[in-house]
Amino acid sequence: IGLSDTDEAMENLIKVFYRYSGKEGDKYKLNKKEMRNMLQEELAEFLTGSNDSAVVENIMRDLDENKDGEVDFQEFVVLVAALTVACNDFFVDSMKRCPTSE
Amino acid sequence: IGLSDTDEAMENLIKVFYRYSGKEGDKYKLNKKEMRNMLQEELAEFLTGSNDSAVVENIMRDLDENKDGEVDFQEFVVLVAALTVACNDFFVDSMKRCPTSE
Repeated sequence: IGLSDTDEAMENLIKVFYRYSGKEGDKYKLNKKEMRNMLQEELAEFLTGSNDSAVVENIMRDLDENKDGEVDFQEFVVLVAALTVACNDFFVDSMKRCPTSE
Repeated sequence: IGLSDTDEAMENLIKVFYRYSGKEGDKYKLNKKEMRNMLQEELAEFLTGSNDSAVVENIMRDLDENKDGEVDFQEFVVLVAALTVACNDFFVDSMKRCPTSE
């Protein structure tokens, strides 16, 4: 039985999370340094560059629902889901503004 | 600039959605038939087989937050996020029960 594209996407997100969360401290959570590395290497195009530290700080605060100073997998998935929806909105907008595509 | 694994996962989810939503009716939403096809081809391992129609029916009802009988991209991402978190919980459980892995 092969993996579908959706299975692979899910598997990749799990792998990415542990690639960073496993570096130090709690292996199942991203601390601030791990989070910064993850954002810079995986989602650099969403960091607008103005002040990366402040951005990382804000994202951590927003995601860390249980306020333990670390981001667990469920909190990480919320970030990726939100970014994916934002990407999709951008994509749909472009499609709808392009009359030749129909 | 190359795509990171996270970028690819996000891109794959968007592609998968439109592969099914574009088949008929509103091209930006999954109707019940498109949803059934998507679930069977992409997430078959999560359909326990007992009664696929009932499962599809339930998933549609749960996801369709704005009650228009169709599932849009944002509602689809909620499903994939929930399944990914479930997969991850299973994965973490297995890891923690496996003393040799440390």
